[in-house]
Amino acid sequence: MPHVVILGGGFAGLRAAQQLAKAPVRLTLVDRHNHHLFQPLLYQVATATLSPSEIAAPLRALLGPQGVAVVLADVTGVDTAGKRVLLSDGELKYDYLVIATGATHSYFGNDQWARHAPGLKSIEDAVEIRRRVLLAYELAERETDPRMRKALLNFVIIGAGPTGVEMAGSLAEISRKSLSGDFKNIDPRDARIILIEGLGKVLPVYPDDLTDKARRTLEKLGVEVRTGARVTNIDETGVYIGTEFIAARTVIWAAGVAASPVARSLGVPLDRAGRVHVTPQLTVPGLEDVFVVGDLASINQEDGTPVPGLAPAAMQEGKHAASNILRRLRGEPMVPFKYWDRGSYAVIGRGHAVGIAFRRFKQTGFPAWGAWLFIHLMFLIGFRSKLAVMLNWAYSYLTFGKSARIITGPAPRLDQLTLVASSPDGKGAPTDDTEGASRLVSSSNELAPPSPH
Amino acid sequence: MPHVVILGGGFAGLRAAQQLAKAPVRLTLVDRHNHHLFQPLLYQVATATLSPSEIAAPLRALLGPQGVAVVLADVTGVDTAGKRVLLSDGELKYDYLVIATGATHSYFGNDQWARHAPGLKSIEDAVEIRRRVLLAYELAERETDPRMRKALLNFVIIGAGPTGVEMAGSLAEISRKSLSGDFKNIDPRDARIILIEGLGKVLPVYPDDLTDKARRTLEKLGVEVRTGARVTNIDETGVYIGTEFIAARTVIWAAGVAASPVARSLGVPLDRAGRVHVTPQLTVPGLEDVFVVGDLASINQEDGTPVPGLAPAAMQEGKHAASNILRRLRGEPMVPFKYWDRGSYAVIGRGHAVGIAFRRFKQTGFPAWGAWLFIHLMFLIGFRSKLAVMLNWAYSYLTFGKSARIITGPAPRLDQLTLVASSPDGKGAPTDDTEGASRLVSSSNELAPPSPH
Repeated sequence: MPHVVILGGGFAGLRAAQQLAKAPVRLTLVDRHNHHLFQPLLYQVATATLSPSEIAAPLRALLGPQGVAVVLADVTGVDTAGKRVLLSDGELKYDYLVIATGATHSYFGNDQWARHAPGLKSIEDAVEIRRRVLLAYELAERETDPRMRKALLNFVIIGAGPTGVEMAGSLAEISRKSLSGDFKNIDPRDARIILIEGLGKVLPVYPDDLTDKARRTLEKLGVEVRTGARVTNIDETGVYIGTEFIAARTVIWAAGVAASPVARSLGVPLDRAGRVHVTPQLTVPGLEDVFVVGDLASINQEDGTPVPGLAPAAMQEGKHAASNILRRLRGEPMVPFKYWDRGSYAVIGRGHAVGIAFRRFKQTGFPAWGAWLFIHLMFLIGFRSKLAVMLNWAYSYLTFGKSARIITGPAPRLDQLTLVASSPDGKGAPTDDTEGASRLVSSSNELAPPSPH
Repeated sequence: MPHVVILGGGFAGLRAAQQLAKAPVRLTLVDRHNHHLFQPLLYQVATATLSPSEIAAPLRALLGPQGVAVVLADVTGVDTAGKRVLLSDGELKYDYLVIATGATHSYFGNDQWARHAPGLKSIEDAVEIRRRVLLAYELAERETDPRMRKALLNFVIIGAGPTGVEMAGSLAEISRKSLSGDFKNIDPRDARIILIEGLGKVLPVYPDDLTDKARRTLEKLGVEVRTGARVTNIDETGVYIGTEFIAARTVIWAAGVAASPVARSLGVPLDRAGRVHVTPQLTVPGLEDVFVVGDLASINQEDGTPVPGLAPAAMQEGKHAASNILRRLRGEPMVPFKYWDRGSYAVIGRGHAVGIAFRRFKQTGFPAWGAWLFIHLMFLIGFRSKLAVMLNWAYSYLTFGKSARIITGPAPRLDQLTLVASSPDGKGAPTDDTEGASRLVSSSNELAPPSPH
């Protein structure tokens, strides 16, 4: 039986595997994680509404019983001449290959920003962001230096695409609602949530009226929206926009997307983001047995606009590549891919969203939010996850409570915080509220006393 | 108002704080974690049934609205002369102090074992054990060397107290039920679950008939029970019992308990495990304003047996210390503590437990298991957690599925596994199935081919 190897267990890879599970092929799926991740809800893990396991399903449990071999390994490249996938600790031969290794965040050549401004692609990312956000309030509660306290309560999100907007709305909700009454020395409502976008508007792929609505809703929730602002540097003290400095201990990167490096080993031209220009059949040009699907594929719709990097598009591509493999096996010609745009939604906050259904019907406010909830619950894999997520959403809606508000991992010490970057990199001294301050550390004397009650 | 400082937000500390919340005192609770942990269910996180946030509740959400100041910090010691608590990055003055910092695992002077045999005290521990257990099956699936594969599928639990027994039963269930059908190259049922106990029986604090029943149940579930066996060394290749060697990649430590080091700074005599011999009033001898409660306190019942290190005992002590502080404030004499033993239960597996209620009524099998479920759900903090845990238990009971089967954190590479300890420490060469093997690494050739379906 021909051996079909699928790289990546995201929406595209999983869908391809499910489509091929009953076909007369030997099927292997490789992923570096043991779980499929429902990425559209990842920001809710980062903002403490959901638990990691509620949006992650073990690939082995999804595919093993269907006879698919699941291999937990890192893919380092593809040798298309030898028809081999190279792993960090082995290799796999294939007859047909489906590459669905997706994308990660790109810092546009400034990889040193990654440490200060984590992105949101994996469970580990989400838990790290949750840890930073919750710790910022904890440290602010104990901090006695007002400038450092201010920096701790500034949350900057860079990039106002759907992820950035969803994060900003959730962080505003945490500061305005979830944490109110929990602290004695700070008022969590003093937190500033600052959303920075390089382009001229939030949610740039949406039409202007939806974008305007989204911006007004964000501002009503307490988010400061800064469009047309280009970030020029990020360090442990904050974010620089040209000569302007925003002191912030918590910075979240929701801007650039870079394709998985696996594409580079194919030896074909890539687009600016590192994605593969695939044929209409979703194959790599010149390689009829290698398919690229999902966020790693660059392909246009009939009207010339690119197929968006959304879960439904990835699933459709995965399914289509699988069907083309089956056609090849039956000796039939492959057919071109056609994206069916059923719509897309972006949540802004509790009861607020914007969206377009079937490229035509614009929705805002509560109806859009309801549609978003329904679609996401429907596509979430696994009966138990659906119930658990529903339970958490109901709880969160009714109480504003964040049920996953736990900090794991090491906590920094107050006396290790710095207000000024320790190793300035020539990008200009801070010009905002840390002006003239030498390397300041918080006093390690008696804590700020709790106010009497 | 007098300032009462409570160190530790476990069962004892939380109960003390709740008792004092409405009293005319200024109240501060210090913990290194931001959450109260429902420790009796921690093994279910380690074995992928529950998610961390389902058994952890934010201390701030529990206590903040009641006017208690919560401080996230590491306690390094207590200066009883100056009435100060020393933190890693500050200090706190107190009028009354309640120390409830509990215990951690002890390797009996062999701290180098910690790396190879993690214990189970925190969320981080539980997630790490879950990672190791799930990864062991993943690596075994890809391993081609039969000896390494065998070592990967050996799971050793050291210590057959309640935690060890619960872990062993759960691991047996994972291997026999949850994972069946998910792998192609291994049969998870081939896994050996080995429970090692230095004393002569499992669950040593229980009477012989319950202990016998527990052992038979464990064996029926597929656990190999080794009593009267003393572990003499642990390294990355396995466990040594004298000259006997058990090759195992996953070893879990459920044996020794060591009191929190905070006790050492009090300058009073401690017992062998480092606990404080408290007065009947739960104070430190000679220090009327310092109370020690929970696992850190050593105190006997009227019949001379020690108050056990169980959650109900900790809660009763926390409440009692709080009441004694209130008595002091009212100018009344303090009263001695009396433990009310309502019973204790240990779960062995799905539908199996042993227990004693009110020091008299022995229970086994399904009734004991039902009682255990009921008690643990009842005491679990928070309405949402109760529902979420119930949902997971129902799912797990009906399907044998483990909903939290996700691996987070870095995965080791196959070619980094070793069969023989790289730095022998003079404890004698392995004598079991690695005999004569030089430093073996797995082959990094083509993976074991998935069997055709």
